[in-house]
Amino acid sequence: MASLLGNLFILAAPSGAGKSSLIKALLEKHDGEDAYPMQVSVSHTTRKPRPGEEDGVHYHFISREQFESLIEQGVFFEWAEVFGNYYGTSRVTIEQTLHQGIDVFLDIDWQGARQVKKLLPDTCGIFILPPSTAVLKERLTRRGQDSEEVIANRMREAISEMLHYDEFDYVLINDDFSTALAELEAIVCSGRLRTCKQNMRHSALLEDLLNT
Amino acid sequence: MASLLGNLFILAAPSGAGKSSLIKALLEKHDGEDAYPMQVSVSHTTRKPRPGEEDGVHYHFISREQFESLIEQGVFFEWAEVFGNYYGTSRVTIEQTLHQGIDVFLDIDWQGARQVKKLLPDTCGIFILPPSTAVLKERLTRRGQDSEEVIANRMREAISEMLHYDEFDYVLINDDFSTALAELEAIVCSGRLRTCKQNMRHSALLEDLLNT
Repeated sequence: MASLLGNLFILAAPSGAGKSSLIKALLEKHDGEDAYPMQVSVSHTTRKPRPGEEDGVHYHFISREQFESLIEQGVFFEWAEVFGNYYGTSRVTIEQTLHQGIDVFLDIDWQGARQVKKLLPDTCGIFILPPSTAVLKERLTRRGQDSEEVIANRMREAISEMLHYDEFDYVLINDDFSTALAELEAIVCSGRLRTCKQNMRHSALLEDLLNT
Repeated sequence: MASLLGNLFILAAPSGAGKSSLIKALLEKHDGEDAYPMQVSVSHTTRKPRPGEEDGVHYHFISREQFESLIEQGVFFEWAEVFGNYYGTSRVTIEQTLHQGIDVFLDIDWQGARQVKKLLPDTCGIFILPPSTAVLKERLTRRGQDSEEVIANRMREAISEMLHYDEFDYVLINDDFSTALAELEAIVCSGRLRTCKQNMRHSALLEDLLNT
């Protein structure tokens, strides 16, 4: 990882924290930047596509049999079974992308994050929190006309995800969206400015400056 | 340090990298921000004030005898003798400032930085580099009508400072000033978003979210 120019960022959050919107806004804002390209890693999953989700864009949708075969081949860098569905991330694809100097965003849960961190300690973990329990509940309720029980379940899932926030390097509070986006950009920018990365990006300059 | 809300940033650079201008611009831009106040630490020195320098603003100008007495009293958090003059930083003042949630910028050299890092490992070290040897030489020459020898000496000093860049967490290349300023702001912002700091700043929110 120390020899990879790109940065790997893990973004985790409970449902309702606004993670997907933040990642989408970040990528759209910086689309086409040559100096510092970035992209979201597309995971594999065995869950059914939701309306509007495209294969190869939102996920690589595959069968349980295919997924289990990929696990055996060691293709995944991390994988987890969540509520009866497999989710996994291709290690090879991510490492090739980072090697090209592209920053990669991994949208995963705390379990996946823990596995990635173990394999690539240089990964930057970011946890996104809602600004209050009231707002979180409101956001989870707005998702549709669900029963109290479904909402209560979502709240429990959200809390069980949030209990792991302190395994991450950074914490973002998504209260005002544009502030949270600016903070996410600051974390991404500072990741590139770390000495280990600047050593790679500016090796010619460093050579010039130090050997005069 | 983990119990101090404010962040301590060390900025080091060779003369001619534009460090002072960057710190000045950063402080001016964020002057009066209530949520995240910041200030430069004012050091003690035994060197003579240069034209325009004010006691208590740029430095606390004191005698060698006074300085050596403060060393004995253990007031300095770091001190060094550079080209026959003492420079030192009051530990007590900095810790009180950080405790109030104010970010502190320490404008010191690699020797001081190393001492501070040893005492407060949570300190964030930033090294600022010029964009090329040619630009560095030009900037050092522009300072006045100095002899070739004086300029050559400055270049040697600059290189001996730069040889320590990799002891710092971040490296900034000051090519375009506004880019370098934005990068410095990103590092400062991300420092505040670290989980250890967010734990302190948002303890009530975390309590609310996790104990519902």
